[in-house]
Amino acid sequence: MNYRMIVHILGKIVLVEGFLLLLPFAVSLIYADGCSIVFGALAASLVLVSALVTARAPKNRVIYASESFVIVGLAWVLTSVLGALPFTLSGSIPSFIDAFFETVSGFTTTGASILTNVEILPMSILFWRSFTHWIGGMGVLVFVMAIIPLAGGHSMHLMRAEVPGPTVGKLVSRFQSNAKILYGIYIGISVLQIILLLAGGMPLFDSLVNTFATAGTGGFSIKNTSIAAYNSAYIDGVIGIFMLIFGINFNLFYLLLTRKFLQVLKNEELRCYLAIVALSVGAITLDILSLYENVGEALRYAFFQVSSIITTTGFATDDFNLWPNFSKTVLVILMFFGACAGSTGGGLKISRLVIMAKTVLREIKKTARPRSIISIKMEGKPVEDSVVNSTNTYFVVYMVIILFSVLLISIDEFDLVTNFTAVVTCFNNVGPGLSVVGPTGNFSEFSMLSKLILSFDMLLGRLEIFPILMLFSPSLWRKK
Amino acid sequence: MNYRMIVHILGKIVLVEGFLLLLPFAVSLIYADGCSIVFGALAASLVLVSALVTARAPKNRVIYASESFVIVGLAWVLTSVLGALPFTLSGSIPSFIDAFFETVSGFTTTGASILTNVEILPMSILFWRSFTHWIGGMGVLVFVMAIIPLAGGHSMHLMRAEVPGPTVGKLVSRFQSNAKILYGIYIGISVLQIILLLAGGMPLFDSLVNTFATAGTGGFSIKNTSIAAYNSAYIDGVIGIFMLIFGINFNLFYLLLTRKFLQVLKNEELRCYLAIVALSVGAITLDILSLYENVGEALRYAFFQVSSIITTTGFATDDFNLWPNFSKTVLVILMFFGACAGSTGGGLKISRLVIMAKTVLREIKKTARPRSIISIKMEGKPVEDSVVNSTNTYFVVYMVIILFSVLLISIDEFDLVTNFTAVVTCFNNVGPGLSVVGPTGNFSEFSMLSKLILSFDMLLGRLEIFPILMLFSPSLWRKK
Repeated sequence: MNYRMIVHILGKIVLVEGFLLLLPFAVSLIYADGCSIVFGALAASLVLVSALVTARAPKNRVIYASESFVIVGLAWVLTSVLGALPFTLSGSIPSFIDAFFETVSGFTTTGASILTNVEILPMSILFWRSFTHWIGGMGVLVFVMAIIPLAGGHSMHLMRAEVPGPTVGKLVSRFQSNAKILYGIYIGISVLQIILLLAGGMPLFDSLVNTFATAGTGGFSIKNTSIAAYNSAYIDGVIGIFMLIFGINFNLFYLLLTRKFLQVLKNEELRCYLAIVALSVGAITLDILSLYENVGEALRYAFFQVSSIITTTGFATDDFNLWPNFSKTVLVILMFFGACAGSTGGGLKISRLVIMAKTVLREIKKTARPRSIISIKMEGKPVEDSVVNSTNTYFVVYMVIILFSVLLISIDEFDLVTNFTAVVTCFNNVGPGLSVVGPTGNFSEFSMLSKLILSFDMLLGRLEIFPILMLFSPSLWRKK
Repeated sequence: MNYRMIVHILGKIVLVEGFLLLLPFAVSLIYADGCSIVFGALAASLVLVSALVTARAPKNRVIYASESFVIVGLAWVLTSVLGALPFTLSGSIPSFIDAFFETVSGFTTTGASILTNVEILPMSILFWRSFTHWIGGMGVLVFVMAIIPLAGGHSMHLMRAEVPGPTVGKLVSRFQSNAKILYGIYIGISVLQIILLLAGGMPLFDSLVNTFATAGTGGFSIKNTSIAAYNSAYIDGVIGIFMLIFGINFNLFYLLLTRKFLQVLKNEELRCYLAIVALSVGAITLDILSLYENVGEALRYAFFQVSSIITTTGFATDDFNLWPNFSKTVLVILMFFGACAGSTGGGLKISRLVIMAKTVLREIKKTARPRSIISIKMEGKPVEDSVVNSTNTYFVVYMVIILFSVLLISIDEFDLVTNFTAVVTCFNNVGPGLSVVGPTGNFSEFSMLSKLILSFDMLLGRLEIFPILMLFSPSLWRKK
């Protein structure tokens, strides 16, 4: 375990976070909201600390897969702890545990909130809260790597550990993912959304923060009633479509840029993703028809909510907690599904679901013909058995974590639907659940223990479990 | 596909079911409850039909694994359809779908009921209803094979397809399981329970039917308030302990008979099973303490309910729907767990859970040390990777079925807790769920479609999915 290199990289991350805090610092100066001292002092302190820690570069710069996982796991915990400081220091969220929950929810692009009234917060605090979504969406480390060369040829390890989805570069990517290209695409689509929101009459500040939350598939809003506050079919449409776009594997945008349109059209994960969206929107539209004036209205709300939930964003244009049970069931199931691998969305990811569905079909065929050998194909190519097995194992671990979390937070004695959907929505980085944690509710009433468990679930979900879980593995820290 | 042999064996099963109907026939004569004609005529018809079908034995008696699965799948559907006839013909359950649900619930040892008042039913109908539990517990085919030699050396295939748990004879059994030995043990323990219940002052008829429901880990009761009706700590204790006993792998009883005590004590699945029971009883006792007069009372109700749910029996001595949410969550989780492999209990089975838990630990270790090779051990012996992978795949299929079932029955618009626990309790062959399908509720209000889906779930759960699912595989029925 190359401890010096781990500390060095963590130091660089602190440096970048220090510079990032200059943005809300600027916002606080513009709006003169009284938070300039907090953001300014904190930014300076982080840069100073980082300078001290990273003053002497370690000689041995080699890191292996296990170190990458440790770095990613620690980086996310550290970034969240530091990122929570402005909330507490400014007095916006007095309890540090609450501030930590809110910041983890921001960076992991969950969007679950302990705040009961966001509209009274200072502008710079609202900006920082939404900006964490944008940074966390593509990955804290990917961002750092886009600016600073970190570990030479070993950065792929770091990216593998941070970018969501099964085995980056194994399933779908035909090119070496590159932090700069990814961020270029990310910024490009974000700018497009900001322009379209401005065109719809949304104020600049709102356009910025709502785009941060859309791009990261986060879901924090600066309005208490989320996107419903704008009450505009145009804005619902733009945000609904951009959520879907940010749920697509970013490799596909690269293929679009390089004019490989046919490959994009043939992409199996994309097709399944769009098919699931279309089916869900159709089913929910029919189910909620009686609640709205006409089919168009029902379709508008159904589309927005399906897009918001499957991409694990968590914006709301209506209180779906009041929808019929069938629609609620569809939405809860979509929370598990999540978006495409290699996107900013959370959840199990569509490619995992496709592999799992194909495994189920294979098992049925195998029972009928025990001696037949059937290989699972994805994107036209056979999937290695090791990928199939690790996908199924991932699902087992995933369900075990949900089970334990539900059990632990049920000590708070909320109802089962609240407990279950709270864990599912946090773990899958969605945001709202049902009942107490529904779109009009929030997480403020949970105990401190439950808030920590749910924060932990958000981190586990965002980093796909292992980088966080392995921090607790004794064999990792034992000296060879 | 040896169709003639499949029909032949199904014919033999009809014969045995015809003879089994003579028992409720005798009961109806003793109590003169007016059902003698129904049971008598039906028994005679089944014997006659069987005689016609099985008159000429097929020349080719060879059956392979795939045929065994088909036979087991069809046998259970057929037995349930025929077993439902007495309920409808006697007028006790006028709707055939309802009667089918009740019979499937009986044979699969689920114990979920559509009846709102069982105490008004004729004695012979109550007897038949509970007796289906006893037959289904050890397996319809195992029972037939205990009496009639069916397929020569190929009967192991049939047993593998019917006896619950991962890979009979692979994980734990050190002897060729034998239908007669299994039934000998089953009858022996049942007789012991009947004697102990009689000793506690329970009437003979009640002792018989309650033992049937305990032995099969079924849960049908002849009282509207289940075992609570007897209001006796002694009876609660006897039934509580015997439920636990019937949840133990029957191979262990054989080891006890052959005086291999040390092997029994060392059994990993048994230890985990008892540890989970002890932990759950402790946690629930603490949680419900305030609802009862003293610790002893709380312990009594906690122990009975934990034993009832983990063994997937489903008896109740109190309405646990009114317990605090933590206790309810523990019980719902135990519904998934189920009892030991090779017992009469349902659920995922403890041995599968142990393998899954060890897979999770291995994955964490593997992340820390990617190149290390760690084999999973069970009962002191390494578990083959194929068993580990098929266990994880089984879990994936299992969750997919739960998800689809919940989605389909949610069209009925019951609340999420009702829908979720209804599917979980039926699929795991437990019986009661929460909310509408709680211990004092029942399944009568569901639509016909939902009742069929839940019946299907009970069959899938009891036969561990594949024998039923593969009946729908086109490749099975296609001619080579």
